[in-house]
Amino acid sequence: MNAADALLKTLIKNGLEVVFANPGTSEMHLVAAIDHHPEVRPILGLFEGVVSGAADGYSRVSGKAAANLLHLGPGLGNAIPNIHNAKKAVTPMLNIVGDHATYHLQHNAPLTSDLDGLAKASSDWVGRSESPNDLCLVGAEGWRQAHKFPGQISTIIVPADCAWGETDSEGPLVQAEGPEKVDDQKIEEAFKALSSNKQSMLFLGGDFLDEESLTLAGKIATATNCRLATDTLTKKHRRGCGLTKVQNIPYFAEMAEEYLSGIENIVFVGTRPPVSFFAYPGKKSFLSPDGAKLIEVANVYQDGKYALNCLNDLCKGKKIDKRFIPSGAIDVPQSGDLSVDNLGPLMASLLPEDTIVSNEAGTSGFIFASHVWDAKPCDWLSITGGSIGQGIPVATGAAVAAPDRPVVCLQGDGGAMYTIQSLWTQARESLNVTNVIFSNKSYAILQVELERVGALKTGDRAKSMLSMDNPEIDWVSLSKSLGVPAKRTLTVDEFKKSFQEGLNTDGPSLIEIVV
Amino acid sequence: MNAADALLKTLIKNGLEVVFANPGTSEMHLVAAIDHHPEVRPILGLFEGVVSGAADGYSRVSGKAAANLLHLGPGLGNAIPNIHNAKKAVTPMLNIVGDHATYHLQHNAPLTSDLDGLAKASSDWVGRSESPNDLCLVGAEGWRQAHKFPGQISTIIVPADCAWGETDSEGPLVQAEGPEKVDDQKIEEAFKALSSNKQSMLFLGGDFLDEESLTLAGKIATATNCRLATDTLTKKHRRGCGLTKVQNIPYFAEMAEEYLSGIENIVFVGTRPPVSFFAYPGKKSFLSPDGAKLIEVANVYQDGKYALNCLNDLCKGKKIDKRFIPSGAIDVPQSGDLSVDNLGPLMASLLPEDTIVSNEAGTSGFIFASHVWDAKPCDWLSITGGSIGQGIPVATGAAVAAPDRPVVCLQGDGGAMYTIQSLWTQARESLNVTNVIFSNKSYAILQVELERVGALKTGDRAKSMLSMDNPEIDWVSLSKSLGVPAKRTLTVDEFKKSFQEGLNTDGPSLIEIVV
Repeated sequence: MNAADALLKTLIKNGLEVVFANPGTSEMHLVAAIDHHPEVRPILGLFEGVVSGAADGYSRVSGKAAANLLHLGPGLGNAIPNIHNAKKAVTPMLNIVGDHATYHLQHNAPLTSDLDGLAKASSDWVGRSESPNDLCLVGAEGWRQAHKFPGQISTIIVPADCAWGETDSEGPLVQAEGPEKVDDQKIEEAFKALSSNKQSMLFLGGDFLDEESLTLAGKIATATNCRLATDTLTKKHRRGCGLTKVQNIPYFAEMAEEYLSGIENIVFVGTRPPVSFFAYPGKKSFLSPDGAKLIEVANVYQDGKYALNCLNDLCKGKKIDKRFIPSGAIDVPQSGDLSVDNLGPLMASLLPEDTIVSNEAGTSGFIFASHVWDAKPCDWLSITGGSIGQGIPVATGAAVAAPDRPVVCLQGDGGAMYTIQSLWTQARESLNVTNVIFSNKSYAILQVELERVGALKTGDRAKSMLSMDNPEIDWVSLSKSLGVPAKRTLTVDEFKKSFQEGLNTDGPSLIEIVV
Repeated sequence: MNAADALLKTLIKNGLEVVFANPGTSEMHLVAAIDHHPEVRPILGLFEGVVSGAADGYSRVSGKAAANLLHLGPGLGNAIPNIHNAKKAVTPMLNIVGDHATYHLQHNAPLTSDLDGLAKASSDWVGRSESPNDLCLVGAEGWRQAHKFPGQISTIIVPADCAWGETDSEGPLVQAEGPEKVDDQKIEEAFKALSSNKQSMLFLGGDFLDEESLTLAGKIATATNCRLATDTLTKKHRRGCGLTKVQNIPYFAEMAEEYLSGIENIVFVGTRPPVSFFAYPGKKSFLSPDGAKLIEVANVYQDGKYALNCLNDLCKGKKIDKRFIPSGAIDVPQSGDLSVDNLGPLMASLLPEDTIVSNEAGTSGFIFASHVWDAKPCDWLSITGGSIGQGIPVATGAAVAAPDRPVVCLQGDGGAMYTIQSLWTQARESLNVTNVIFSNKSYAILQVELERVGALKTGDRAKSMLSMDNPEIDWVSLSKSLGVPAKRTLTVDEFKKSFQEGLNTDGPSLIEIVV
């Protein structure tokens, strides 16, 4: 058996089911090995940002890694921005990067680059195969590292001759490390803080925004009268009517500071004290109120579920007060032109139960931010690392992981253009994704930021670097050209019809909204 | 004055004219500074692969760097594959990468990554500003490093507070190092080898494929009866009737070996002994014949022009034999369906004098490879690092550098999908690029390579990772959706009409050819 086949056998034994791929010559034996194993589903992306973003979405929904098959340094380079987002989400990811044959590297052929340097700069763990006999072991260790709780970026480098050579070895079944233990003294300390008379907040994050964690948080908040919050951008957040509302702190630093002002104790579970997205002249980076007591009970690597259970036991939490639970009452718009006022409630009213939402709406996010809590329960996936071009790929991978659930992608036009090739993969695999493009013809967030960084006098030349209005992109034609049916909707009726049609029809669709 | 403005002043003083940009919040003061200096033309790319590829094309044509304005680690990540191609081309490139403010980095905000690691792994030289007072110096040194002969990748990292802070300093006018000296003994040795009775070859590369070098090579070859050759993929190669033909060695290793077989002496000027693009089981990496004498007179960093002049003086070369000069006779097809037989001569007959051709046609390249020598003189830019997605961006940048010359992009469909956003920039800037897409609905080179790496038994699942036929991309709609008029041509007449229309009309166009 060649080592590529042995690697695939090892990974399949450990649970591999999907490979997102954009291979090249140096990966041909891996391509052949994938071909030999029908247990694995290969999915082609026409650009590596699609591959890594889809793997992140798959992983956030399935809880386990896909493998990304990438072509040398440049293939990894293209994948890096969405690897970055996955790294910040702490999702399990296994990159399999082909390299030149070991003996060929010395010749500095055109595709030779500092692959190891790129891998180290983008991954949490890097392994390199040195021979056909170690490839399975490197692969098994890579799989184990990827699944170290809650997940990390694991990259294995596979020289072509290490894949094509013969081997007898087979890699082991591996067991990934679970969450790190929580310090019981910190739980005690947190309990005292939350049950004091001071203004307190329980601040959740990481993997602890699932329904069970939300319920525990709701009970703790009811028992202690603390407030609840989470990070601006989260990996996977269960939201909707009937579920405890754990609100995201605002994106802009001054709004976040205001949101947190007056809080005297903050207890963190699954995350750390919030910081501003960017620095601004004369503004604070660290957002928690000065003098507030910050108790980090569990960081992202620790057993936050255990911490929440202990806290709730100490609080003797039983019920959740209705003020923490959205009512589900939506004032559904019936007709008229689409507007920033009616789009939020309209979309919230139309989201089916158990939808997966991939959200990279950018500045258009404010349109529905206050309404989603009243939608039916859904999973909300955000752009965790701030690197745009994640929304459509993540929706693509989510739909692979959950073929029977509706997937909705809310995507700003700036980010959409980064990884628009994802639409082609959605069409090819007939994935149930309804893509909504918010077309404001600009990097609108940057037009806001240009003001915020400090009263810069600028004119049309600066604006030209932040706007997409010339030429205007025809999203409907663009989508159709890549095999995804599309409509532009201007009224409540049009949107409702197209959105429901998208949700009820097999395969992907796209709706352009002009904002 | 803030440091961002001082940096722009310094770079403009040193010759900066164009900034290719996709900025974010951390680059806002640089955006404002660019706005303040009308001497600099800012050009937005909707994805950083467009930015770095366009800068490479600009630089290959103008001979000097543009600046690329990039947003933190992820922005650099997206730019890396076309930086890689530029690095292999040894073109001058200056990346200006914004970073979080120095005091903000400790907080590990969402967009924080190992930016220095990525920069080091992708660049030849990296500088980091530590304060507003050193930004100009770092920028001037970055400019100098970029222009060290023949050019290299220079990256400066600019923390936001180093850009927005006030400074009195201004950077110096810098002088880049010219080519390194050649060893005169090697020239002597090379002359002896070429003028011996053995089969000899003069092998050119790097910056020594301009008209002057070709003429010298032609005279030397006439005087010594040596053969002439160059690398498969070159930075900028002057070609066409009336010019000495210096043929590229074939891409596939066994064909290259055959091409070189029997040669007893090879003299290298501006390049090094050729190696195969990839390794294959049981095949050689190093392509020169065993036992051949290899004389590396000038590497890519050395003064190859001096070497060629000296060699020609020693040879007493005067004339160029007509067997080295293509006749320009083309058997021009008049009608019928487009085919692999008539497309090459057709296109060669239609290329206007002094066209810049950006070629990433992939497997479709064989269609015109033997015909371009008879076209009118043109500059031929190839995908030097083998990282696909370079063709359209390079054409975009070339058209910025040479607004009065026709630019033709020959682009395979696989690579086109990597950086298709380039079309939008071509439309926005009304650049004179005629893009020809060879639509074979596959990564055809990989289907060949799958066979070549060694009789792998594979089926539809492997093919699915190498084909783009489902869904078929509608290139005409895709191009139009991004603002570039497009046509699909199936006959000689249709192609001729569309191609000439594209060349004669201001602004970009696209032609799809089905191969």
